[in-house]
Amino acid sequence: MQCDRIWRGARLATLAADRPGLGIVEDGVVAARDGRILYAGPAAEAPPLDAPEIVACEGRWITPGLIDCHTHLVFGGDRAQEFEARLAGATYEEIARAGGGIVSTVRATRAAAPADLVGSALPRLDALLAEGVTTVEIKSGYGLSQEAEAASLRAARALGEARPVAVTTTFLGAHALPPEEGDKDRYIARVCDAMLPAMARDGLADAVDAFCEGIAFSPEQTARVFTAAQALGLPVKLHADQLSNLGGAALAARFGALSADHLEYADEAGAAAMARAGTVAVLLPGAFYFIRETKVPPVDLFRRHGTRMALATDCNPGTSPLTSLLLVLNMGATLFRLTVEECLAGVTREAARALGRLPETGTLEAGKWCDLAIWDIARPAELVYRMGFNPLHARVWRGR
Amino acid sequence: MQCDRIWRGARLATLAADRPGLGIVEDGVVAARDGRILYAGPAAEAPPLDAPEIVACEGRWITPGLIDCHTHLVFGGDRAQEFEARLAGATYEEIARAGGGIVSTVRATRAAAPADLVGSALPRLDALLAEGVTTVEIKSGYGLSQEAEAASLRAARALGEARPVAVTTTFLGAHALPPEEGDKDRYIARVCDAMLPAMARDGLADAVDAFCEGIAFSPEQTARVFTAAQALGLPVKLHADQLSNLGGAALAARFGALSADHLEYADEAGAAAMARAGTVAVLLPGAFYFIRETKVPPVDLFRRHGTRMALATDCNPGTSPLTSLLLVLNMGATLFRLTVEECLAGVTREAARALGRLPETGTLEAGKWCDLAIWDIARPAELVYRMGFNPLHARVWRGR
Ligand SMILES: [Zn+2]
Ligand SMILES: [Zn+2]
Repeated sequence: MQCDRIWRGARLATLAADRPGLGIVEDGVVAARDGRILYAGPAAEAPPLDAPEIVACEGRWITPGLIDCHTHLVFGGDRAQEFEARLAGATYEEIARAGGGIVSTVRATRAAAPADLVGSALPRLDALLAEGVTTVEIKSGYGLSQEAEAASLRAARALGEARPVAVTTTFLGAHALPPEEGDKDRYIARVCDAMLPAMARDGLADAVDAFCEGIAFSPEQTARVFTAAQALGLPVKLHADQLSNLGGAALAARFGALSADHLEYADEAGAAAMARAGTVAVLLPGAFYFIRETKVPPVDLFRRHGTRMALATDCNPGTSPLTSLLLVLNMGATLFRLTVEECLAGVTREAARALGRLPETGTLEAGKWCDLAIWDIARPAELVYRMGFNPLHARVWRGR
Repeated sequence: MQCDRIWRGARLATLAADRPGLGIVEDGVVAARDGRILYAGPAAEAPPLDAPEIVACEGRWITPGLIDCHTHLVFGGDRAQEFEARLAGATYEEIARAGGGIVSTVRATRAAAPADLVGSALPRLDALLAEGVTTVEIKSGYGLSQEAEAASLRAARALGEARPVAVTTTFLGAHALPPEEGDKDRYIARVCDAMLPAMARDGLADAVDAFCEGIAFSPEQTARVFTAAQALGLPVKLHADQLSNLGGAALAARFGALSADHLEYADEAGAAAMARAGTVAVLLPGAFYFIRETKVPPVDLFRRHGTRMALATDCNPGTSPLTSLLLVLNMGATLFRLTVEECLAGVTREAARALGRLPETGTLEAGKWCDLAIWDIARPAELVYRMGFNPLHARVWRGR
């Protein structure tokens, strides 16, 4: 069979559902045509393949390109000054009075020109790509007005044009109450009646998210957002049970959400409901680490009930200024005691599932996009074990 | 004044002792001649300077080149498989029975050819250098025989020849009991009577270290090593009070050690003694994080008594497979609540002090080596605040 490019002599971690564990193939071949995988599997079982370009992998490992399924990559400013002040002893109240906190990011995001929103996010995106990321989810949520939310999502789309990476966008208007608005119900009504339809009409949002928490929006307000999203045909996700148990996991499951994210305070009923609904648990150890949370998400409950688990950076300026998905792998293992297999599935197959993109990416299987990460490692566990080391040899997006 | 190279238009964090805080200079100039700093300070106070090469820094920040003052960078093999097994539920005992633990690293280090010891350490060293490191301490301690310890220290010296970086070597024969030796006192006698004199004679060790802990060597055995080192004119350091309080901090101070390292379990008497002796507290948050320690070192006691604090990677295969000094900055702040200033001083000025190299490096002051890190940042706090992001613009070692 004629194809565009063939990788030979590789060891594969296919993550394919029909193979056990990581789906390891010792003498593997991947062939690409028109950006998609034509074949990925054992050399011994491959059909006759021919291509103008044949890459000798010399025993290197190939995994699916990594997927960061939860980021807030687009925002104005940063919060380094606030971080410094807090270490020097400033209280949250003092920081808020000095104009810090999320309000400062909202102000900077609204003030940023479109080109600056893209430009400031590009180094963050490039850091992810340098570690083999081929798909990134990007949320809005620091604009909190129709215009500024649309600008953030347009910046996210522009990032996907600027670099060889698939960007999926999520509208997170219900992230926080905008500083000029005093009433949460009134703001949620605006999100549902004006902002959401506008984002849907302009094709800016691939999914809709909300922050269900005491400091943000109630389960009832969240349900209103979800109902509005589903009326527009948009899948939903949820920032759930991060700081307290408001039943966010079960709420997300009730709406058939793609994922519920954070989940430190989720309970067994929530875990079971998520498993039944096929809602992925997206764990975010970077935020757990950065805010010095001590309650870990109920990983054992997720395992017992068969809830799928993904891992992501949650890259954001307030609680997770993190741009290394490899570091997230280590944190998932070290802080949450995920196994190597759970960690690696969590940034490939399960991350794709959390974005509703599993038919297209996340495993090495024929028909999917040929998104690959090729690693200079002796075994996949190295990707989880090491900290602050990038063994990426090459990154392939859509076959090149 | 004629010099070789001038950096203009920079903001400096000089870390000089005669300036408060980070020693910030807003419109700064650095001039180098013969590899050393001829001038570093405000442009307005600079003498007339001329050079064939003038670098416009466009407002970027210049700090002293970073110093990683505690690493075990040279070793054979890795322990990724053991890490994976432990996450899958294997006990320490099962891992030990399967040949894991430090013994496996000792076996791999002894089996490695000299070129392989250098070759396997180079990617780790390169990861450090890519973040602006210009001085690295490297310990032996996985050879545990005269021949293998000497080979490790020779590999460390060779790394310093292979890359533009200053390597300081530390003989850590008293790291663990070698697997073929049953008696700790007998091994310590061999360290003192045979190994140490050989390392000193061959100029392989710039300092001598020991691991004082229940699972390693007693304070008395440590004191014997220190006495032997001092008789040979070698400065000492100590792995102290990491897992329990054996009075390691005070012991190190009693011998005027350059540093005592780890110190999670150090007490007030130890902190005070270190301050009086000028012994630097080298904190290693990577190991703290990786072994999931919960007791943080007594940072408040160090502050109260004026004990100097440094930060380092402790890069090693068993408890800190970490090759990012920038990540250590974040861990120092997030896990140990060090301030931004303490973190940055800890990988520059105080790290130099912990190696006895403060007269030569660690601050931007005339007469020292011109070792610089030039950063694409708006403020120094960004170096501490971000995780998994490298904003290094350029690295200068000895003026080039
Ligand atoms: Zn988030
Ligand atoms: Zn150490």
